[in-house]
Amino acid sequence: MRHSIITFLSDFGLQDHYVASVKGTILSINPDCTIVDMTHQIAPHDIREGAFVLLRAYSSFPKGTIHVAVVDPGVGGPRRPILFATPDYYFVGPDNGLFTYVLRREKRVKAVVLNNKKFFSSSVSTTFHARDIFGPVAAHLSLHADPERFGKTVQKWQEIGDWQPEVRDGELVGSVFHIDRFGNLISNIDREILFDFIKGESFLIQIGRKKIRTLKEGYWQGEAGEPMAVIGSGGFLEISMKEASAQDTLHVQRGEPIRIRTV
Amino acid sequence: MRHSIITFLSDFGLQDHYVASVKGTILSINPDCTIVDMTHQIAPHDIREGAFVLLRAYSSFPKGTIHVAVVDPGVGGPRRPILFATPDYYFVGPDNGLFTYVLRREKRVKAVVLNNKKFFSSSVSTTFHARDIFGPVAAHLSLHADPERFGKTVQKWQEIGDWQPEVRDGELVGSVFHIDRFGNLISNIDREILFDFIKGESFLIQIGRKKIRTLKEGYWQGEAGEPMAVIGSGGFLEISMKEASAQDTLHVQRGEPIRIRTV
Amino acid sequence: MRHSIITFLSDFGLQDHYVASVKGTILSINPDCTIVDMTHQIAPHDIREGAFVLLRAYSSFPKGTIHVAVVDPGVGGPRRPILFATPDYYFVGPDNGLFTYVLRREKRVKAVVLNNKKFFSSSVSTTFHARDIFGPVAAHLSLHADPERFGKTVQKWQEIGDWQPEVRDGELVGSVFHIDRFGNLISNIDREILFDFIKGESFLIQIGRKKIRTLKEGYWQGEAGEPMAVIGSGGFLEISMKEASAQDTLHVQRGEPIRIRTV
Repeated sequence: MRHSIITFLSDFGLQDHYVASVKGTILSINPDCTIVDMTHQIAPHDIREGAFVLLRAYSSFPKGTIHVAVVDPGVGGPRRPILFATPDYYFVGPDNGLFTYVLRREKRVKAVVLNNKKFFSSSVSTTFHARDIFGPVAAHLSLHADPERFGKTVQKWQEIGDWQPEVRDGELVGSVFHIDRFGNLISNIDREILFDFIKGESFLIQIGRKKIRTLKEGYWQGEAGEPMAVIGSGGFLEISMKEASAQDTLHVQRGEPIRIRTV
Repeated sequence: MRHSIITFLSDFGLQDHYVASVKGTILSINPDCTIVDMTHQIAPHDIREGAFVLLRAYSSFPKGTIHVAVVDPGVGGPRRPILFATPDYYFVGPDNGLFTYVLRREKRVKAVVLNNKKFFSSSVSTTFHARDIFGPVAAHLSLHADPERFGKTVQKWQEIGDWQPEVRDGELVGSVFHIDRFGNLISNIDREILFDFIKGESFLIQIGRKKIRTLKEGYWQGEAGEPMAVIGSGGFLEISMKEASAQDTLHVQRGEPIRIRTV
Repeated sequence: MRHSIITFLSDFGLQDHYVASVKGTILSINPDCTIVDMTHQIAPHDIREGAFVLLRAYSSFPKGTIHVAVVDPGVGGPRRPILFATPDYYFVGPDNGLFTYVLRREKRVKAVVLNNKKFFSSSVSTTFHARDIFGPVAAHLSLHADPERFGKTVQKWQEIGDWQPEVRDGELVGSVFHIDRFGNLISNIDREILFDFIKGESFLIQIGRKKIRTLKEGYWQGEAGEPMAVIGSGGFLEISMKEASAQDTLHVQRGEPIRIRTV
């Protein structure tokens, strides 16, 4: 299986050797797999951001891809290492809610708690399970081991709170879940939820004191200095600016509420 | 063709999933290609910097390499997606001038505006053509599709202003086009232009108030605390310092003029 | 040999094209090799940090891996380009001490000064030997060229001072050698040295004014706001905090002494 693809998302950053050590361990087991960095710049220990970036990226990969994701403040403690298998993808990482969002989108999820040490590194540290457990498990999985061989099938796993916006007092209330390099403010309000809510009527989007009344088709339609709303490439409502940073202009942080009402 | 190589340059940064999504899309079409990051840290929307970094790097790659470059402030708008084929390389990206500098160096350029949707993703967003158009086109191209099948051959394309320095009032006037991680100030004055201009005579290089009278052979010849001039690895004149940052010492930004005259 | 793996560590950063140019050169010689970034964010010119990161990461890779490491303030000057071969790995880079720490761990080291220009790029710059010498040599080596063909076998090479802590006045005195993205302070005191010194007795670890009296098994055992000591994944003593940065809390830089005494 020359084509097996393993993606790797973490909060490890790139200034250390951590990412390379995981790759070295994977390549020691399966030198033929292709490893693709998802990102390693999730804010340290921020499971929710990791879950959201994973949600936006995972489905661009071919069927059979193994997604390793490690944002793992509880490494070495009681949290369990886990593997999820769906008809299209595998997910490997800590059972701390990091996979909550992708699993809401996937059907027929099989969960296996990783306890078969045969697939771990010969010595497992207490601080670096990406290298000692998750990487090796992903590498063995890429060689076609059956998921059930890796441990015990379970019916429950950890979840973080829902990522979806809520309707409160007649308003659709979401928030900024991620801010990208361009300063685009990416919300948790996806296209379906938005269009279901506004039902073709006029609407008002509010973020901080800023009010926006139209959806643009793309960044190029924006006006200089003026924040706009678009449906971004992941299908989520974004507050953006043409060739400028909405974050810098609106002085907004992750978590900032976005309110929508029909008018 | 196991060996097909696709490089990828963008202003996407590495904290988001954008780069990974493009790679996933490419690998979904051609799981055997090798994808190499050129850089993803071009200043957001800075076509000129992207063009210059691409110029300095592209020819280190083997013949047949497909260079995908995306600095694309007009994504989704009227700017055209384009493919250039030369005897040695392919270039895929937005037709906004990003390829101006490399095309000045390449001979027998064939340009094809990408309008054959058969080679795009099944659904094309208005904000992420790297994932939906440029990546898929590069992947199909790596499978040996004929460039002309991707769209309509054209004779004209967008260009940004020339990158070359000018002679004004007896001076050769260039500027700082890129500042690297070490603080080296890399100009647009290439070796041939410089030596043609000075014709073996004594010369004076001026940047800000700093005057430099000699070319060093390499960084190691510098003196502590003293900016020097070298011909850098890409063949361009650089203002550098030994184990220190010329940028920090001279307080210079991109665009700073560099003047040379014979004395 | 489809599986040959070349790792690449440098202080080049990722905003420039330098890393890509080296990869392009390698792939021009051996398009089948797998190139893995170790890190490119070693502090500019900091040989000691490069040596330490290389030490912590190299042995995760399969036998036969070629490690290219370039932190090279003397590029183009009299320092020699060098290749080390051990039974398990190859190391290629400048002979400036960068390999001191790994070579202390490896047995039966063969050193070859690179002077066979047949394996260099056709034109060698004075400022970019990673592209013109080290990359090409690594690529040729991955095609199974005999190390001795690359140059002259030598018995001596440059070393930087030892990385190991010392015993002074009854104290074991080490220092902070690397600070990772999480703010963990990684010392040069490895597990064996530590346990040999404390011999099962009670001990006191001091860093700045902070005193620590126990070793935790992992980060998860820490208490909020309280620095702790652990043996990290590379086998070295670390000062860390649970879901927080020890660096930010203790206001410590690289080089900060860490003192241990039995009590």
